[in-house]
Amino acid sequence: MPASNRRILLARRPAGIPQPEDFAIDEEAVPEPGPGTVLVRNIYLSVDPAQRGWASAEANYAQPVPLGGPMRALAVGRVLRSRAEGVQEGEFVYGWFGWQDYAVVEPKAIVHRATEPVPLSAHAGLLGINGLTAYIALTALGRPVAGDSVLVSTAGGAVGALVGQIARNLGARPLGLTGDDAKVDLCRSRYGYAEAWNYRTTDWDARVAETAPDGVNVYFDNVGGAILDTALRRMAAAGRVVQCGTASIASWNPLPSGPRNEREILTRRLVWSGFVVFDHVPRFAEARQTLAGWYEEGRLTYDEDIAEGIAQAPGAIKALYAGENRGKKLIYVG
Amino acid sequence: MPASNRRILLARRPAGIPQPEDFAIDEEAVPEPGPGTVLVRNIYLSVDPAQRGWASAEANYAQPVPLGGPMRALAVGRVLRSRAEGVQEGEFVYGWFGWQDYAVVEPKAIVHRATEPVPLSAHAGLLGINGLTAYIALTALGRPVAGDSVLVSTAGGAVGALVGQIARNLGARPLGLTGDDAKVDLCRSRYGYAEAWNYRTTDWDARVAETAPDGVNVYFDNVGGAILDTALRRMAAAGRVVQCGTASIASWNPLPSGPRNEREILTRRLVWSGFVVFDHVPRFAEARQTLAGWYEEGRLTYDEDIAEGIAQAPGAIKALYAGENRGKKLIYVG
Repeated sequence: MPASNRRILLARRPAGIPQPEDFAIDEEAVPEPGPGTVLVRNIYLSVDPAQRGWASAEANYAQPVPLGGPMRALAVGRVLRSRAEGVQEGEFVYGWFGWQDYAVVEPKAIVHRATEPVPLSAHAGLLGINGLTAYIALTALGRPVAGDSVLVSTAGGAVGALVGQIARNLGARPLGLTGDDAKVDLCRSRYGYAEAWNYRTTDWDARVAETAPDGVNVYFDNVGGAILDTALRRMAAAGRVVQCGTASIASWNPLPSGPRNEREILTRRLVWSGFVVFDHVPRFAEARQTLAGWYEEGRLTYDEDIAEGIAQAPGAIKALYAGENRGKKLIYVG
Repeated sequence: MPASNRRILLARRPAGIPQPEDFAIDEEAVPEPGPGTVLVRNIYLSVDPAQRGWASAEANYAQPVPLGGPMRALAVGRVLRSRAEGVQEGEFVYGWFGWQDYAVVEPKAIVHRATEPVPLSAHAGLLGINGLTAYIALTALGRPVAGDSVLVSTAGGAVGALVGQIARNLGARPLGLTGDDAKVDLCRSRYGYAEAWNYRTTDWDARVAETAPDGVNVYFDNVGGAILDTALRRMAAAGRVVQCGTASIASWNPLPSGPRNEREILTRRLVWSGFVVFDHVPRFAEARQTLAGWYEEGRLTYDEDIAEGIAQAPGAIKALYAGENRGKKLIYVG
């Protein structure tokens, strides 16, 4: 166990997608928990697309990470010391512990206790914000019914891989878009997709039109941009568009332009909703229970891409946006 | 009563907003109803922004009006002869009777019987698609709760004038955008708006920011374009955007561009829905009852702008899009 606390600090505001140079590493003494707080030893640091937004100074749903402070991140860890009521030493927990070896936090930073019968790391992905996002965004906003065509972008990513399987488990017909051929294969063979295409090399618009001639009922969008614009024009009447990410947009400053879309919303009577998982905390327990149940029954496959050592963290968001990961991206620091 | 049937025909496909030259007038013998149909004598022809879409050949929620056929329109008329079960001669009816003096239609062309205690012409507006749109789009898609800020574009139009009053009757706080100062006054004095601004001459974005510092909860959009883009950036978290029209867009071919909006949808967790009133037929009776009740109680003011004679029809859509009407635009042909 390290005798000091290595921390990945946000050294400057990223211009768009956070780069390794936007971070610095420092080392401090292992902090002592004060009254009402707990000391967590991190084991798996989570790497998430949402960290880009948290690092940005632009208006957002979350307060920006303070410059010079540890990078905001979710992690799985173990409670080493507790000075807070209701938190026991030795518990495994998932929460807002940051990119660092140790964190002193209040109990409210704990998103959940890692009690379900899944591998410990899966609490950061399958039962963490990726799984919660996939399940809640699809069921609450996408609302597929049996037989619906569900188009998903970044279908091979940590969220998309689960959306495909959840849609299939609900009786819908998931169609996946992803950026390389290996992920196309994974989508088809492992992630429940009825069809999947490499959007870089395939005329996927034509393929979707053939495969879903009555239109797409649910578009689960993680990328925005030109793929979104095309997908909107393949929607069925009364289709639902779930805006879960905008990964294809390299920078929002200056504001990029695109084709106007309000006529599609109107004439197709779409419902286009934005999703931020922490609006849905009351559904977390139910979602975790369903996901863990499917996992136990073998109805949900879950892949991880685990790097070793905190020094991997500064380049991890960039690599994530480049689609280099195979499965949920984690950094093992335990 | 005219001895012949004058009809306004769609002579060519409009390029954008229908112009007088896109129509022709002809005259035919008064048609005879066949079995299962009725002969309606039109009294008030309705002029509606949606007619632009109906006249267009572009993909839409409705089949395009056939070239050379009578212009699709709603109207209030009286049944002169009935060869259909359940329709009585002498009944006043509102429905799909077209821009013509007489129509032979099946009973399914009748949207409703004009039985509520309102002036006959009000069946084409207050209790017709304008009122139904205002009431159902606001309550089903906008869903304001007491105290919500409800921003409305074309606030002085046939729909907007009702949206303001309905929002006020529901305890919300309507804020209106309109294109001339006379309508600003009407919005404030007659149409229930807490505030209204001339978007051509006022920095309405700054006014909205002052008036609704916590953001706009519902944006009821009839115009699209730059006003929509600005309004999206004034929305409160979890705000609802109702896409009811796109009147500010002169042409969709070529497809106009604008700033990308998916980040606003995501970070503000908006719900942006398209509204077409005829998706909501099961709610029509309830909506008419509520609107007629408010009208009787003096809680709903209703203005009309009635032109005389069918020769006014070909220029009427253009005038509507130019905002020249004061109240619901009708053409009296009875």
